[in-house]
Amino acid sequence: MPDPLLLTPGPLTTTRTVKEAMLRDYGSRDGEFIAINTHMRARLTQLVDAAGTHVAVPVQGSGTFAVEAMIGTLVPRTGRLLVLVNGAYGKRMVRIAEVAGRSVTMIETPEDVPASPAALDAALAADPTVSHVAVVQCETTAGLLNPVEDVARVTATHGRRLLIDAMSSFGALPLSRATVPFEAVAASSNKCLQGAPGFGFVIVDRDALAAAAGNAHALTLDLHDQWRGFEANAQWRFTPPTHVIAAFGRALAEHEAEGGVEGRGRRYADNCRILVDGMRTLGFQTLLPDALQAPIIVTFRMPADPAFVFAEFYDRLRERGFVIYPGKLTVADSFRIGCIGQLGAAEMTAAVAAVRATLAEMGVASGAP
Amino acid sequence: MPDPLLLTPGPLTTTRTVKEAMLRDYGSRDGEFIAINTHMRARLTQLVDAAGTHVAVPVQGSGTFAVEAMIGTLVPRTGRLLVLVNGAYGKRMVRIAEVAGRSVTMIETPEDVPASPAALDAALAADPTVSHVAVVQCETTAGLLNPVEDVARVTATHGRRLLIDAMSSFGALPLSRATVPFEAVAASSNKCLQGAPGFGFVIVDRDALAAAAGNAHALTLDLHDQWRGFEANAQWRFTPPTHVIAAFGRALAEHEAEGGVEGRGRRYADNCRILVDGMRTLGFQTLLPDALQAPIIVTFRMPADPAFVFAEFYDRLRERGFVIYPGKLTVADSFRIGCIGQLGAAEMTAAVAAVRATLAEMGVASGAP
Repeated sequence: MPDPLLLTPGPLTTTRTVKEAMLRDYGSRDGEFIAINTHMRARLTQLVDAAGTHVAVPVQGSGTFAVEAMIGTLVPRTGRLLVLVNGAYGKRMVRIAEVAGRSVTMIETPEDVPASPAALDAALAADPTVSHVAVVQCETTAGLLNPVEDVARVTATHGRRLLIDAMSSFGALPLSRATVPFEAVAASSNKCLQGAPGFGFVIVDRDALAAAAGNAHALTLDLHDQWRGFEANAQWRFTPPTHVIAAFGRALAEHEAEGGVEGRGRRYADNCRILVDGMRTLGFQTLLPDALQAPIIVTFRMPADPAFVFAEFYDRLRERGFVIYPGKLTVADSFRIGCIGQLGAAEMTAAVAAVRATLAEMGVASGAP
Repeated sequence: MPDPLLLTPGPLTTTRTVKEAMLRDYGSRDGEFIAINTHMRARLTQLVDAAGTHVAVPVQGSGTFAVEAMIGTLVPRTGRLLVLVNGAYGKRMVRIAEVAGRSVTMIETPEDVPASPAALDAALAADPTVSHVAVVQCETTAGLLNPVEDVARVTATHGRRLLIDAMSSFGALPLSRATVPFEAVAASSNKCLQGAPGFGFVIVDRDALAAAAGNAHALTLDLHDQWRGFEANAQWRFTPPTHVIAAFGRALAEHEAEGGVEGRGRRYADNCRILVDGMRTLGFQTLLPDALQAPIIVTFRMPADPAFVFAEFYDRLRERGFVIYPGKLTVADSFRIGCIGQLGAAEMTAAVAAVRATLAEMGVASGAP
């Protein structure tokens, strides 16, 4: 029986060829392995139009390790971070700053409301001690797209620096330094770039990074030292996850072959449309209006029909080969279905059909909340 | 052409079956995936006879991330760490404590001299502010075995707590809580347990960990929070490296099938003996006397023959299918050859034969320093 398809925010379904790239044991000083890393670092900066100004620094661990490395290395001990929060990942950045001993404040909006550039403008005008602003491009708590262009414009107008958590969107949603001037953006190997999980990366302004020596709060999360290591000998400071990196090299090639950010994003947008249209015909309602919905993961309100028991719905879908995701909202009872990973129109259509069949089995007349 | 064999301190050569375990995409909440993690956590404590008192907490990243998590979580902000240093990995623990803002001191011996229990005894008697002692079981800088039993006894006599970096030895050299009372021991997925690199783990006294809430210097390196996450729902706090963990589950089964620590250690000891005996017949000298040599990685003094150029020797051995390792010593010019990973008598004999043939090609009469 084949593995179930992962309709989740990650780890997600990858191609067979990406996984097969892990069937080799590379030494960490191997020339071919070093070439994968060097190409990866160059390609990542190109994907956000930042090859001239920024460097890509990979960090072992999950994506959160990269976000923590970004904040701990770049926000000075005398600085102050303002986080735009509308979900768990914004809150996590606040927590990272607190644990790292950095001064931090936030502007919080409900999980179904985008960050407000006007509120940011007022906050920055009122608090000149804020050195950095942080925002999540796609907050997967609700699946919401934040207005990173407007946030970047306001931040730049006030002469502050912008840190972006693009974990769930990097490689599928447009993000260009030309229109979204950022000091740094963090993402990971296993979301829209469709590699295996095991490391994250930060694409960071070279001058800012050079000025950040000695600032980090943890040795392993010191982006500056990690960067110096790559610059010195093109190798990782500490043991790299060689197999996962080999898979990522393959994943980047497949991303490029699909048409890069545009091609990948188009497929995910199609996936999202098929999913949302199909679920709506079954009576389900999305939490977000379509204009705020990122084509990454969709939150559906919990159906009102008493025959609908989420745990049973989840298990039955799993048996049919589709893994969905629980909700994480405080504003509404909900569940989530992802559109990312190696899924296309056939898989999304099949997922909707599986939902339809499962509702029938459970005796649920409608998905309406 | 098959991959070269990695005669290095890691990443190292793994079995085909371990790598094939990475050909599946697990969701992080998948029941089968959770079962791998639960079994892994239990098995790791058993390997050091600590199932009753300690818990195993895996940490994303390389082994150094686990060492940093151990130090940052367990050494209180009001505590003081004394590190026994005789190589790069002891020095790294000092650096970790410094960056984390922990008070730290060290007793340093040359890279070819084991840590001194007598010196530790005197230091602890003289400095009652030291709360924790840290030691590396096998310091791979020289390949030296430190006397962890004596270090543990002295530390316990003074009522201090012991942290062990067992990165390169865990699973192959004996380490038992019964004879080496430790508060915590850190190691990784990809050394003697022969998994793929991508995470480390700390086996830590449950009571000490419970008392360490809020102590860590970094969110992602907070062992206490990571543990609470596993206890709550058997899942990782942040995205786990699912493929690497699946490989590790397989690697643990293969370790057990080989006879556990005893069986794995016996094969490595045989590998080491074949290597050292063979290299000595070619004139090479080991840095360490046999009594101090751990069967993990062997340091050889650089040959005196002017025809011996290490870079050429390295490249020629690589072409013959064997990857060795440069030296990292300050006390002597040297190189290193590892004995760990999926290597046995046939591979080690072939490695020595390749060295012999390479010396002949290079016109080197003897490996004597």
